Amino acid sequence: MSSATAFGPLVRPRLYLGGELSLGPGKIDLLRKVGETGSISAAARALGVPYKRAWLLIDTLNRGFPSAVLETAAGGRAGGGARLTPLGEALVAAYDALETKLNVSAQSEIAAIMRLVESPVAVAPRSRRRR
Amino acid sequence: MSSATAFGPLVRPRLYLGGELSLGPGKIDLLRKVGETGSISAAARALGVPYKRAWLLIDTLNRGFPSAVLETAAGGRAGGGARLTPLGEALVAAYDALETKLNVSAQSEIAAIMRLVESPVAVAPRSRRRR
Repeated sequence: MSSATAFGPLVRPRLYLGGELSLGPGKIDLLRKVGETGSISAAARALGVPYKRAWLLIDTLNRGFPSAVLETAAGGRAGGGARLTPLGEALVAAYDALETKLNVSAQSEIAAIMRLVESPVAVAPRSRRRR
Repeated sequence: MSSATAFGPLVRPRLYLGGELSLGPGKIDLLRKVGETGSISAAARALGVPYKRAWLLIDTLNRGFPSAVLETAAGGRAGGGARLTPLGEALVAAYDALETKLNVSAQSEIAAIMRLVESPVAVAPRSRRRR
């Protein structure tokens, strides 16, 4: 569900917002795509997510936030449309700001992990752990 | 699979490491728990993850990194044990350092999202989007 690395951020955040509510790349990518396409089903298709799962993710957000993040209209000839509410738009923008901040401010910590991926010799010898 | 908020970090990172390899809270919590329990099945049970999924997550890491993150021993009377390799330990430590850095450096961006969760009036009026 998430694109990444070469053309996107290397680190994407997941926020734990209390109770069972969390907000990560999946829900944000979905919200953004609904905003772009004007349709939950088109967004789900574009992201390769089953419609039912997309609907459940959005329902979780609508219930978890103080007001809805997305509103739908009953369909006329072109079917029902969907669009982000001002809260939904603010949420996507705030997530993007966090994501950008993370990737800029934690560059050295990210680089340390990348060194572990790329080169086994970067691992310093350590004392043996007990079993 | 992830505990959070009150007693843990609010933001947990997922890193996209190139190709299909990613590293997020699920894999890190599992590695840490294997290190604590000395057993993949005990770790899976403690985290409420099916054993097969736990095994697949670890296999993905072992294949994606230049050397294994976890090693297993053939079982004697007590069954086979498992423990983190030095690379596995370094990986958990590096992830923890990143997680701590994120939560400290992005406090204002995190607070902005929390305000959206807690109060609908925090959303400034915006111009209507086109459908």
